[in-house]
Amino acid sequence: MMSAMQIAVYPGSFDPPTNGHVDIMRRAAARFDRLIVGVGVNSAKTELFSVSDRVDMLRAEAKTLSNVEIEVFEGLLVEFVKQRNATVVVRGLRAMSDFESEFQVALANRELAPEIETMFLMTSAEHMFVSSSIVKEIAALGGPIAGFVSPEVAQRLQAKHSR
Amino acid sequence: MMSAMQIAVYPGSFDPPTNGHVDIMRRAAARFDRLIVGVGVNSAKTELFSVSDRVDMLRAEAKTLSNVEIEVFEGLLVEFVKQRNATVVVRGLRAMSDFESEFQVALANRELAPEIETMFLMTSAEHMFVSSSIVKEIAALGGPIAGFVSPEVAQRLQAKHSR
Amino acid sequence: MMSAMQIAVYPGSFDPPTNGHVDIMRRAAARFDRLIVGVGVNSAKTELFSVSDRVDMLRAEAKTLSNVEIEVFEGLLVEFVKQRNATVVVRGLRAMSDFESEFQVALANRELAPEIETMFLMTSAEHMFVSSSIVKEIAALGGPIAGFVSPEVAQRLQAKHSR
Amino acid sequence: MMSAMQIAVYPGSFDPPTNGHVDIMRRAAARFDRLIVGVGVNSAKTELFSVSDRVDMLRAEAKTLSNVEIEVFEGLLVEFVKQRNATVVVRGLRAMSDFESEFQVALANRELAPEIETMFLMTSAEHMFVSSSIVKEIAALGGPIAGFVSPEVAQRLQAKHSR
Amino acid sequence: MMSAMQIAVYPGSFDPPTNGHVDIMRRAAARFDRLIVGVGVNSAKTELFSVSDRVDMLRAEAKTLSNVEIEVFEGLLVEFVKQRNATVVVRGLRAMSDFESEFQVALANRELAPEIETMFLMTSAEHMFVSSSIVKEIAALGGPIAGFVSPEVAQRLQAKHSR
Amino acid sequence: MMSAMQIAVYPGSFDPPTNGHVDIMRRAAARFDRLIVGVGVNSAKTELFSVSDRVDMLRAEAKTLSNVEIEVFEGLLVEFVKQRNATVVVRGLRAMSDFESEFQVALANRELAPEIETMFLMTSAEHMFVSSSIVKEIAALGGPIAGFVSPEVAQRLQAKHSR
Repeated sequence: MMSAMQIAVYPGSFDPPTNGHVDIMRRAAARFDRLIVGVGVNSAKTELFSVSDRVDMLRAEAKTLSNVEIEVFEGLLVEFVKQRNATVVVRGLRAMSDFESEFQVALANRELAPEIETMFLMTSAEHMFVSSSIVKEIAALGGPIAGFVSPEVAQRLQAKHSR
Repeated sequence: MMSAMQIAVYPGSFDPPTNGHVDIMRRAAARFDRLIVGVGVNSAKTELFSVSDRVDMLRAEAKTLSNVEIEVFEGLLVEFVKQRNATVVVRGLRAMSDFESEFQVALANRELAPEIETMFLMTSAEHMFVSSSIVKEIAALGGPIAGFVSPEVAQRLQAKHSR
Repeated sequence: MMSAMQIAVYPGSFDPPTNGHVDIMRRAAARFDRLIVGVGVNSAKTELFSVSDRVDMLRAEAKTLSNVEIEVFEGLLVEFVKQRNATVVVRGLRAMSDFESEFQVALANRELAPEIETMFLMTSAEHMFVSSSIVKEIAALGGPIAGFVSPEVAQRLQAKHSR
Repeated sequence: MMSAMQIAVYPGSFDPPTNGHVDIMRRAAARFDRLIVGVGVNSAKTELFSVSDRVDMLRAEAKTLSNVEIEVFEGLLVEFVKQRNATVVVRGLRAMSDFESEFQVALANRELAPEIETMFLMTSAEHMFVSSSIVKEIAALGGPIAGFVSPEVAQRLQAKHSR
Repeated sequence: MMSAMQIAVYPGSFDPPTNGHVDIMRRAAARFDRLIVGVGVNSAKTELFSVSDRVDMLRAEAKTLSNVEIEVFEGLLVEFVKQRNATVVVRGLRAMSDFESEFQVALANRELAPEIETMFLMTSAEHMFVSSSIVKEIAALGGPIAGFVSPEVAQRLQAKHSR
Repeated sequence: MMSAMQIAVYPGSFDPPTNGHVDIMRRAAARFDRLIVGVGVNSAKTELFSVSDRVDMLRAEAKTLSNVEIEVFEGLLVEFVKQRNATVVVRGLRAMSDFESEFQVALANRELAPEIETMFLMTSAEHMFVSSSIVKEIAALGGPIAGFVSPEVAQRLQAKHSR
């Protein structure tokens, strides 16, 4: 039977958080006692926003969700999950290309920590093709991004590129 | 925040239940307070096993799982989920072809009942390519099926074909 | 250079037409001088609606589109296209599984009639996972289908199943 | 190290054999000492051509290939492979949808007979989207099929439909 | 109804143009009154050929097509399309991996400019697996590329690598 | 008919070799008279292990396989294959994303050297989602990698990261 309190981790780069990320965060928050959104520090990737900017943006998005916390993690995801006493990893599935790499990571994580379950939510149809990369690309070219991110994130993105 | 008790429905045809189904059932049972395995009655499909045979086989597989019940449902899945006060539908994702139709059904179900969330577990690597259909095909040709289903299901399958 | 008048054919079963079909029909009508929606008669498939019902439903959907005609065709699509002096076949692409069979048919058609071009429009995100089959399935189970088809089609579908 | 003589089986329905099948047959014949093309008898499928017609068509295609034999098999493929002292199953891979079901069958066969290896050849680009089904569909509608099958197969297909 | 003159934009990197690109360009030129091939300037990508080299190569390929112009664009594609009074974006679809990113871009573009339609042509079977990247890779290793690009492009590629 | 002796080349980066690579190597070694594992030198990719380290690791894995040799190659694969009098290229197919790029490379190679056949083996289910990249990523984060690579490779990976 299920343990008394279900804690889930929703990990990602969130560079920046899109409406798709926020949709998954909300839906996951409604299903678990506590949801920890984990902003991964990945030295290999060149990120547009600093880790603390990404945490700020996520906190703004989560401010009405009382059981959601935003945290930073470095190193192996499963270690972070264990340290937080979480038992579930939540991921949003968008489309085909996601599927492949998500499978790979989920199965590797099960090998590393069989007691942690990865649960997938399907991205809503309207966010199916929205990604942080495409949003950054449109913003870099001066295009409108209001349909893809929150007003606050949009403002920060535009600030990056007006400089 | 999450409601006091999380009830999930794991729907399927289970004609017959494979080791892959049982793996998902066990993993889902560990994540929810109650898991209802729903055997769908689909008059359009020709099934090998009667609904009551399928329920029996699933009960045998679930006998050590105290929070799992096996039930039959007819009609719309989301109606069945609501009647049982469940809020989650659990589905196993195997591979590419699954993905498409699972997306279609999950999004249709959200349209019908936005308060019900579909959560996907990835099928374990060793069951990734096992399906009820291929097991039935092998059994019909007299092939060994011990690696794909439980001994009890294997026996029933062989009985079907020795007649 | 392009010929004086561009006529396109949008073929399908339309059993029944969904909001996704109507979206493609409208967008295609805006791009060609004339659009002929071709309802294919396929004796091998069991259809829910008669050909004349399907034509009626499509005519209702197309009544504000002055350059759209609904016609029935039997036999090879490319023959129908040639007889109508059309040079383009329009198809909507939804998702992965579509892609495969659409490629197969488009390449076969090019082998049969290289002068006819197949042009694909991407289904809008919100219709990406809507199909005639899933709509019929939901209707058969008594579920609500208002989000997937027009009110008129919904009424006809419900009439089919209330009998 | 490899055994003295490598025998491979190329199984299929071949209803009818297409240019794609013939291409795989030729390429496989060039790689193995003996190639047995196995025409599967599948009582569940409705075939257009009788088993003996399919054998005749394949024999005509293989007549210049001295190390190829055409045989009929019933029951489990791996049993047929063992009876012929073959160690390899050859399959042509066309595209995405093939991939899934081929994986499923190959992995099931390995479970049944680990000593038999399935080797895949990629279908040539020009045959990538040709299948027996689409050829039959075009022929049934009276369309030209010369680009997809040999003249002999084309003649037989047309004979079927002129009656 | 369709506007008096249909102008389409076929955007890409064309680094270098392959036979697949040229095939799409020709087929699109036959369907629209005017076709503008837009060479995108993307500062983030490292290109082998300068923008002006790419324009030269495309002009050579298009010299017999009287309604095709080659232009350079910077910034957002939809802005370029609007400035040229075009209403259609043409893209060639090759295979699965294309499909994903093409969908993503097409849907983002519709969000940005709903009045612009993206129309997809299927790449011919023989060019299905040809890409600028693989051509560059083969050329860099000294391999023959005559089957993939025009003689002029081949010469320029070899010149790059003989230095 | 098959030539007297079948030599196959199994090319790759092997940075480092995983259990999946070793599985394919063993199965291929059982099917051909000689198997040459070709470690490709690719100046464009940043590799973790030097070419000679990769050769050493593969030699350790192959030490009980008498008909396997490990070699380094630079330049075009098909040239290397011809120089070694091999007629077959062996590749392991893992999953969807592999499929696309493998098709592309196999078809390009056939254009370059039609006499060389690429044969694909399906990766075993348990290695389906293991790749050199994910193993390196886990090792870099200090995670356990014993399930994915041999003890010797694991030791070398850990040595890389403890420095």
